[in-house]
Amino acid sequence: MTSADTPAAPADAHPDLVADVGLLSPVRVASHLEAATGDHAFLQAMLDAEAALTRAQAALGDAPAWAATAVTAAADAVRFDARDIAVRARRGGNPVIPLVADLTAALPADTAPYVHRGATSQDIMDTATMLVVARALPLVAADLRRTADALGRLAEEHRTTPMPGRTLTQHAVPTTFGLKAAGWRHLLLDALDRLSRIELPAQLGGAAGTLAAAETLSGTPGSGPALLAAYARELDLAEPVLPWHTLRTPVADLGGALSFACGALGKLAADVLVLSRTEIGELAEGSGGGSSAMPHKSNPVRATLLSAAARQAPALASVLSASLAAEDERPAGAWHAEWQAVRELLRLTGGASRDAAELADGLRVFGDRMLDNLHLTGGLITSERLAAELGTLLGRAQARELLTRAAHRAATERRGLDAVLEEEPALADHRDRIRRLADPAAYLGAAAALVDRALARTSGPDHGKRP
Amino acid sequence: MTSADTPAAPADAHPDLVADVGLLSPVRVASHLEAATGDHAFLQAMLDAEAALTRAQAALGDAPAWAATAVTAAADAVRFDARDIAVRARRGGNPVIPLVADLTAALPADTAPYVHRGATSQDIMDTATMLVVARALPLVAADLRRTADALGRLAEEHRTTPMPGRTLTQHAVPTTFGLKAAGWRHLLLDALDRLSRIELPAQLGGAAGTLAAAETLSGTPGSGPALLAAYARELDLAEPVLPWHTLRTPVADLGGALSFACGALGKLAADVLVLSRTEIGELAEGSGGGSSAMPHKSNPVRATLLSAAARQAPALASVLSASLAAEDERPAGAWHAEWQAVRELLRLTGGASRDAAELADGLRVFGDRMLDNLHLTGGLITSERLAAELGTLLGRAQARELLTRAAHRAATERRGLDAVLEEEPALADHRDRIRRLADPAAYLGAAAALVDRALARTSGPDHGKRP
Amino acid sequence: MTSADTPAAPADAHPDLVADVGLLSPVRVASHLEAATGDHAFLQAMLDAEAALTRAQAALGDAPAWAATAVTAAADAVRFDARDIAVRARRGGNPVIPLVADLTAALPADTAPYVHRGATSQDIMDTATMLVVARALPLVAADLRRTADALGRLAEEHRTTPMPGRTLTQHAVPTTFGLKAAGWRHLLLDALDRLSRIELPAQLGGAAGTLAAAETLSGTPGSGPALLAAYARELDLAEPVLPWHTLRTPVADLGGALSFACGALGKLAADVLVLSRTEIGELAEGSGGGSSAMPHKSNPVRATLLSAAARQAPALASVLSASLAAEDERPAGAWHAEWQAVRELLRLTGGASRDAAELADGLRVFGDRMLDNLHLTGGLITSERLAAELGTLLGRAQARELLTRAAHRAATERRGLDAVLEEEPALADHRDRIRRLADPAAYLGAAAALVDRALARTSGPDHGKRP
Amino acid sequence: MTSADTPAAPADAHPDLVADVGLLSPVRVASHLEAATGDHAFLQAMLDAEAALTRAQAALGDAPAWAATAVTAAADAVRFDARDIAVRARRGGNPVIPLVADLTAALPADTAPYVHRGATSQDIMDTATMLVVARALPLVAADLRRTADALGRLAEEHRTTPMPGRTLTQHAVPTTFGLKAAGWRHLLLDALDRLSRIELPAQLGGAAGTLAAAETLSGTPGSGPALLAAYARELDLAEPVLPWHTLRTPVADLGGALSFACGALGKLAADVLVLSRTEIGELAEGSGGGSSAMPHKSNPVRATLLSAAARQAPALASVLSASLAAEDERPAGAWHAEWQAVRELLRLTGGASRDAAELADGLRVFGDRMLDNLHLTGGLITSERLAAELGTLLGRAQARELLTRAAHRAATERRGLDAVLEEEPALADHRDRIRRLADPAAYLGAAAALVDRALARTSGPDHGKRP
Repeated sequence: MTSADTPAAPADAHPDLVADVGLLSPVRVASHLEAATGDHAFLQAMLDAEAALTRAQAALGDAPAWAATAVTAAADAVRFDARDIAVRARRGGNPVIPLVADLTAALPADTAPYVHRGATSQDIMDTATMLVVARALPLVAADLRRTADALGRLAEEHRTTPMPGRTLTQHAVPTTFGLKAAGWRHLLLDALDRLSRIELPAQLGGAAGTLAAAETLSGTPGSGPALLAAYARELDLAEPVLPWHTLRTPVADLGGALSFACGALGKLAADVLVLSRTEIGELAEGSGGGSSAMPHKSNPVRATLLSAAARQAPALASVLSASLAAEDERPAGAWHAEWQAVRELLRLTGGASRDAAELADGLRVFGDRMLDNLHLTGGLITSERLAAELGTLLGRAQARELLTRAAHRAATERRGLDAVLEEEPALADHRDRIRRLADPAAYLGAAAALVDRALARTSGPDHGKRP
Repeated sequence: MTSADTPAAPADAHPDLVADVGLLSPVRVASHLEAATGDHAFLQAMLDAEAALTRAQAALGDAPAWAATAVTAAADAVRFDARDIAVRARRGGNPVIPLVADLTAALPADTAPYVHRGATSQDIMDTATMLVVARALPLVAADLRRTADALGRLAEEHRTTPMPGRTLTQHAVPTTFGLKAAGWRHLLLDALDRLSRIELPAQLGGAAGTLAAAETLSGTPGSGPALLAAYARELDLAEPVLPWHTLRTPVADLGGALSFACGALGKLAADVLVLSRTEIGELAEGSGGGSSAMPHKSNPVRATLLSAAARQAPALASVLSASLAAEDERPAGAWHAEWQAVRELLRLTGGASRDAAELADGLRVFGDRMLDNLHLTGGLITSERLAAELGTLLGRAQARELLTRAAHRAATERRGLDAVLEEEPALADHRDRIRRLADPAAYLGAAAALVDRALARTSGPDHGKRP
Repeated sequence: MTSADTPAAPADAHPDLVADVGLLSPVRVASHLEAATGDHAFLQAMLDAEAALTRAQAALGDAPAWAATAVTAAADAVRFDARDIAVRARRGGNPVIPLVADLTAALPADTAPYVHRGATSQDIMDTATMLVVARALPLVAADLRRTADALGRLAEEHRTTPMPGRTLTQHAVPTTFGLKAAGWRHLLLDALDRLSRIELPAQLGGAAGTLAAAETLSGTPGSGPALLAAYARELDLAEPVLPWHTLRTPVADLGGALSFACGALGKLAADVLVLSRTEIGELAEGSGGGSSAMPHKSNPVRATLLSAAARQAPALASVLSASLAAEDERPAGAWHAEWQAVRELLRLTGGASRDAAELADGLRVFGDRMLDNLHLTGGLITSERLAAELGTLLGRAQARELLTRAAHRAATERRGLDAVLEEEPALADHRDRIRRLADPAAYLGAAAALVDRALARTSGPDHGKRP
Repeated sequence: MTSADTPAAPADAHPDLVADVGLLSPVRVASHLEAATGDHAFLQAMLDAEAALTRAQAALGDAPAWAATAVTAAADAVRFDARDIAVRARRGGNPVIPLVADLTAALPADTAPYVHRGATSQDIMDTATMLVVARALPLVAADLRRTADALGRLAEEHRTTPMPGRTLTQHAVPTTFGLKAAGWRHLLLDALDRLSRIELPAQLGGAAGTLAAAETLSGTPGSGPALLAAYARELDLAEPVLPWHTLRTPVADLGGALSFACGALGKLAADVLVLSRTEIGELAEGSGGGSSAMPHKSNPVRATLLSAAARQAPALASVLSASLAAEDERPAGAWHAEWQAVRELLRLTGGASRDAAELADGLRVFGDRMLDNLHLTGGLITSERLAAELGTLLGRAQARELLTRAAHRAATERRGLDAVLEEEPALADHRDRIRRLADPAAYLGAAAALVDRALARTSGPDHGKRP
C-alpha cells in the first residue's frame, strides 16, 4: 500500500477525533444510561470481572488473599486507557487481551500471576457485559416505572374523557383518553415484566467451556463448578448451569426485552405524534422543541426521538437473535457481532425511557379538542350504535338503507348526521332518542371499566427490585 | 389500464396456479405444522371464533341457544372457499369481512343476525391467529422435546467422549461430545421455556376496543367484560385485561419465542455442519441427502435446512417487533404486516423442530475420528495445561519460552508436541509426566460434571402441558 | 416417535390443506404477479431451464437435436405435481432432484440421458429463479409506470394547489400538492431505475462451478464457457462471467431493488394515510374499503396494504443480503434461505405496485380542505416569511420579539396571526403588506418550478423494455 | 423526579465517560474511516455546509462576499464543542440548532445574519452526511481495490492449484484456488461498482422543501433553484432535481451499497474461516491473532472481524431502507433513525475493507494441504467423472451400480476408490484409464479459463475516481 491516495495510518488518531459522544443520537444523550454504557463502563466492568475471579479463587484457597486484595485495588484505582486498549484489541480481536496485559503490568511481580488465571477472554468480556447490563437495567426500569406512573395518573384522570377512537386513520367509534393512557401503561408494564425476567449469569468456562484450566491451576479435580459459584457470588450475578460461550440465551433474551421496551415506547410515541398533529391538537408535549426557522412551531420532539429508537431496536435485536446460531465453542464472528448491538440497544432503550418519562410527566391533554373532534362528523361516529338501535326499531335492512342515505346526505351537505336524521319521516316520533343515540360522549361502552381493570395491575416492588 | 402490455386481470386465476404448497420451503413440508397453519386452518379458526362469540352471547342470555348451535354447526360443517374469500378480502383489506358475509349467507334468515354481533374484523382475525398458534405450539413443543430427549441420551452416552474444543475455527483445548450435546439440549429447553411462557389471549373489543357495540346489543351496560370472559372460556384462550388491538404483546412475544427456537436449532445445525465436514468427520446425519450428480455425497441436509430457517427467523420476528409501534385503535399497516410473518415463523419453527428431531434421532457419532482429530496437533491442544504445569516446574517465563519454541518445532517438523518436548534436556526427568500432560483425553476438566448438571434439568410435564 | 401426543405423519396431507392461496396477504391477491410467482411458475421455470440446457448442448453438437426437441416438448406439455415434488424435495433439500427424476421418467429411455447432463441442482434452481424474476419484473414495472404516470398528471394539475407543508407532524410553511405528487413520482422513477439495472444471469457451473462435468460429457476440453453462452442465449438471460453459486450479486441486488420499490410505495402510502385522516381530509382513496360494523367509514385500504408491504420488505431483503456471506462452493443454509424471501418480496412488490396504481388512478384531491387547513393557524404558517420581512422593517431582534408575542396572543385568543399583527402599533403603516405576507397561498417559493424540473424526467421506453 | 432511586442528572458527565472510542468494535479501530466518521467529522461537515451556503448566496449576490469569507473562516478555524452541542441537541432533536447558535455567536454581529439563511436544520444535517460520505467512500474504495488487487494476484498465481470444491460442507468435485480467489475479487468489484454508482446530492429546500425562505431573502422569485445549484457547486456534491427531505434515495442506496460491500467481504471471510480450520489447513492469515491462554493458537482474526461486520450490516441497512416510508415534508422519527445507522455502516465497511486488505496481502496458501485434502476420499471426489466415463463403457445403470458398491467398499475399508475399482473384474482392461480418471488434479474443467475471464475485468480508474 504505497499509493498516494491513502493517508497515513491513523492508529494514533486522537481519541476525540474518533469518538462518538452522542452527536447523532440525541435520544440517549445525558441519560443515566449513557455513562453506564460508555467504553469506560465496559472497561471497568472487565476489571471488576478480573478482580472477582481472583477473589473467588482466594475464597476457595486457590490464590492468596493478599493477591485478591491487590488485584481488586488495582481494578478499582488504576486508570486504564480505553483508546489505547481499543487499538491494541485489533490484534487478537477483543479488548480483554491488552487489558490483562495492562492490569498485569500495573501489579507487583508476585501478584501478576494471579490475574486472569484459568479464564479465557470471553469469560471476562461476557461477564463484563452482564455487569454493565445489571447496572443499566435498574436505570431503564426506573424511568419506565416513572413513565408508567405518570400514565396511570392520566388514565385515572381521563377515565371518561371522550375522544374519537380511530382505526385505519378514520374515526371509528368513541373511546376515552383514559383507556388509551391505560393501554400505554399496560404495555410498559409488559416491558418491565420482560426486563425483570432476564437472567444475568456470570461467565466462566475457560478456553472451551470445560473449566479445565481452572481445575488444573487449583490442583483439585472437580473444583471448577465451585469456582463458578464463588465467582458468580462475588459479582452478584446468577450462576449458570453451563458456561454459555455458545449458548447465548442471556444475550438473545436481553435483545428481545430491550426491543420490546422500545416498541412499547414506540406505541406511546406513535399515538402522541398523531394526536399532536396541527389539525388534531388533542395532545401536546409539555415543552415542545423549537425550530430555527419557524418561531411558531412546537414540535413533539420527545415522541419523535422515541419513534426513531423504536425503528432501530428490532434490527439490532435481530443481530443478537441471529447470533444464537454460534458454531463451535467460540464462534468466529457471531460473538463479536453482539457487542455494539448490545450497547446501542441499551442506550436506545435507556434514552427512550428517560424521554418517555419527560413526555408523560409533561403531557398536555386538550379535552375540549377531543370533544370538538368527536363532533367533527356530526354524529357519524355513532352510526354503529344508530344502526343497531334503528334496526330494532325499523328492521335491520330498512335501518341500514336509511342510515346509508342519511350519512351520504350529511357528508354532502356538510351537516350533522343527527340533524339529517331528525328530518326523516320514519323517525319523526324518535327525535329525542336519536339525539341521545347520536351523542358520542354517551357511547363509551366499557371504557371506564377497562381502565379500572388495567389500573388494578400494579407496577409495584416486584418490578422495582430487579431490575 | 388498457395498455397492451398488461395481461388481463387475474382475479380468477385458478388457486393451484397461485398457491404456495411448499416447493420453496422444504424445511416445513410434511411437518405436522404445515396443515395446522395453512389458509384453511386460519379460515377454520376464524369460523371457530365467530361460533364462540355467538355461544358466549348465548351463555349470557344475549342470543338464543338455538342460534349458537346453528352458527357452531355451520362453522364446523360448511365448506368455505379460501381463495374466493382471499380475493374478496382485497376490498376491505382483511378476510373477515367476506367470511362473515359467506357465513351469514349459509345460515337461515333468523340466525344470520346472531353472527359477528358486536365484533370487529380484528377481533376475529386476532382470535383466529391465537387459536392457530394454540393448536400449533404443542406440535412444535413435541418435536422440540423429542429432539431434547435424543440429545439428552447422546449427552449421557458421550459424557466423557473426548473431542477437540474449537474456538475461532481452531483447536483450543479438549472437551467432550457429551458436553456439546448437553449444551444443545440446554438451549432447546430454554426454547421450550420461552414458548411455554407465551400467553395466548382471546381478542374482543369491538370497533375501537371499548366493547360498546356488544354492550349496546346486550342492552346491559357493563356487560362487556363478562362477554369477553365468556368468549375466552369458549375458546380456551386466556382472558386479556384489555382488548389488545394495538397492545401487541402476544404477537411480539410469539415472534421472539419462535425466533429463539429457530436460533437454538441453528446452534445445533451450525455444529453438526462443522463436525460433518469431510475433513472433520466426527458426525454424520443418519440419512444424508444424496446428490443428483455425485453418488458418493452424503449431505447434512437436515442441518442445512435448520440453518436456513435460523437465517430467516430473526428478520421475520423483527417485523413483528416493529409492529408494536402501532398507532391509534387499529393501525394502517402495522397489523396487516403481521399476518404472513406469524404464519411463516410458525412454519419455519415447526418444520425445523421436526427436522431437528429426525437429525437427533439418527445422528451418527464417530468417537474414533474425534480422538484422531484430538491428536492432529500432536498435543498442541494441551499446551494450555503444559504451560501451567511447566510453569510450576521451570518458572512461568522459561516455561512459556520453551513451549513456544517446541510448538514451533512441532509445527515445522510435523511431529507431535509431546515427542519434541521429550527431547528437551530441561525436561529429561519428566518424560512420563509430559506424556501424561500432553494426553488430550486426560484434560477434560469439569466436562462430565457439567453434563450431569445440565441433565439434571428436566424437560418434564411442565413444559409438556402448555404448549 | 410412537407417542400418543403426536398425530400421524402428514406427508400425504391434501395440498389444499397446506396451501397459501393469499388469505393472509391481500396486497398480492389477484395481482398479475401472483400466478407468475406461484409454485407452479417456479416448477415450470425449472423445466424451462432443463429444456434450455439440452437445447444448448444440441446447438453445440453435444446432444442430438431430437433429444432437445423431446425434452422441450415434455417440459412444455407434461403436468408435474408440485406438491408431490415438494414432499420428495425434503430428502435432498431441494426440488430439482425429484423434478429431474419425474422429467426423466416422462421421457423415452433413449432421451432420458440427455436431461440435466453436466448440471447441478443449483444450476437449475438459480436459473429458474432468474426466469421467474425476468417474467415478473415487467409486470411490476408496468404497474409502477402506470402509477408514476397518474402521479405525473396529479402533479401537473396541482402544480400550484397550496397545502400545508408538515414537518414533525406540525404545519411548517406552505407547499403545493403538485410538488408532493411530483416527489412521489420521482421516487417511483428511482425505483424503476433500480429495477431496470438488475442483471439476470443464467446459472451453469456444475457441481463446484468449474463446468467440469459438462466438458467431460462434451469430450471437448474448454467447451464449458461456450455451453454457458449457448444456455444463456436459449433462456434470454445474461451470460455471467463466472458461475455465481456463491457470488450472489443477482439475488442481493434483486432484494435491494424490490425493497427500495416497496419503500418508495411506502412513502406514497404514508402521505396518503396522513392526508386521509378524518381531521385532515385533504385526500381520499377513490373507493375506500368499508367496514362490517361502521357504515360511514371509508378506509384508505390501498395505502394500508402498501404500508404493510413496506414494513415487511426491508426484513426480507436483509435475509438476502446476509446470504452474500456464503461459504464454499455451495453453502449449507445461506442459499436455501433465499428462496421464500425472493418469492415473497416479488409478491409484495408486485401486489403493492398494482395497489398503488389503483390508488393513484382513483385518488381524490380536496383542494378546498387543503386551503382550509392552511388557514387553520391564522397565518402562523407564514411566520417564517413574516420574520424575514419584518426583520428588514424593524430589525431582526425586534421583529422576532414582536412576532413571538403576536403568535402567543393568536394562539391564546384563537385568532388569526394576521389580525393580531394588524393591531400592533409598530406595524400600523404596513397593514396591507402584512395581510399579503400572511397569505399562505402566496408563499410557495419554487414549488411550481420544482414540479416542472421533476416532470421533465421521463419514465419512457428505457424503463419500459427491461424490465 | 426527586425519587431516591434515580441518580442525579448526568447532563454534565465528562465526554470521556460517555464516549465510544472503539472498545467494542475492533473492526473499525485505527482505520482511515474512523476519524472520518467521528462526531468531530460530522460537526465539521455541518460547518462546511453552512459556509458553503453563505458562499453560494454571495455568488448569487444575496450576501456580501466578506460575510462568506468570514463564515468560511469561522467554520474552518473555530473549535466547537461536540459534546456540548450533543447535549443541547436534545431540545430540538437535532444538533444543527445549537451549532448554528454557536457559529452565530462566534461571528461579529454584522456577519451573524448571513448564517443559515433560508435553510432548515435538515438541509445542513443531510448535506453534512453526504459530505462525510463523499470523504469516506474513497477511503473504503481504496482498501477494497487494494484487496481486489491482492486477490487478483492470488488468482493468477493459483490459477490451476487444485483444491477440493465443497458443497453443503462435503467434498464435491475439484476446483482451483485461483477460481476461488477470482470469485472473491469479482464480488469485491461488484461492491466497488455499487459504491461508485451512489449519487451524493446536496440538500437544500428550506422548511418544507419549497426554497421559499431562500427566495424571500433573495428578493428574487425563482432564484431558489439557482441557489441550489450554486450550493451544490460549492460543496462539490451533486445537484438534486428536488430537495429530498423525504425522498430518501441517497440514504437507502448508500445503505444498500455498504451492506453489499460488507456481504462481499463476508463471503471472503466465510471461506477463509473454513479453509483455516485446524483439520483443513489450506489457508492461514499472515499474522493470526494470539490467545491469552493458548500459546499455540493462531486465530483467523481478520476473517472473524469481517464476519462480524457482515452479520451487522444487513440489519443496519434495513433501518435505512425502512426509512424510505417517511411521511410529510419531514418525518417524526424515520429521519432521526438514519443517523447512527449510516455512521455505523460506514465504520463497519471501512474497517472491514481495511482488515480485508491486510488479510489478502498476508494470506498464506498451502497448496500441499489442498492436494492432501483432495486425496482424502481416495478419488471419491471424482466419482462424478467416473460415473460419466464408466457409463459410456458399461452402460449407465451398470456403471452406477458398480460405482455405488465400490464407493461403499472404499468408505468401509478406508481405502482409495481407485484401488477398489482396480480390483473390479469388469474394469480389468481399463486400469490405467481408471487411475487417470480418478486423479482429482486432472478434473478441473474450465477453472483456469474462468479465472482468465474474471481477471479480464478491471478494477481501473473508473472505480478509482469516484469513489
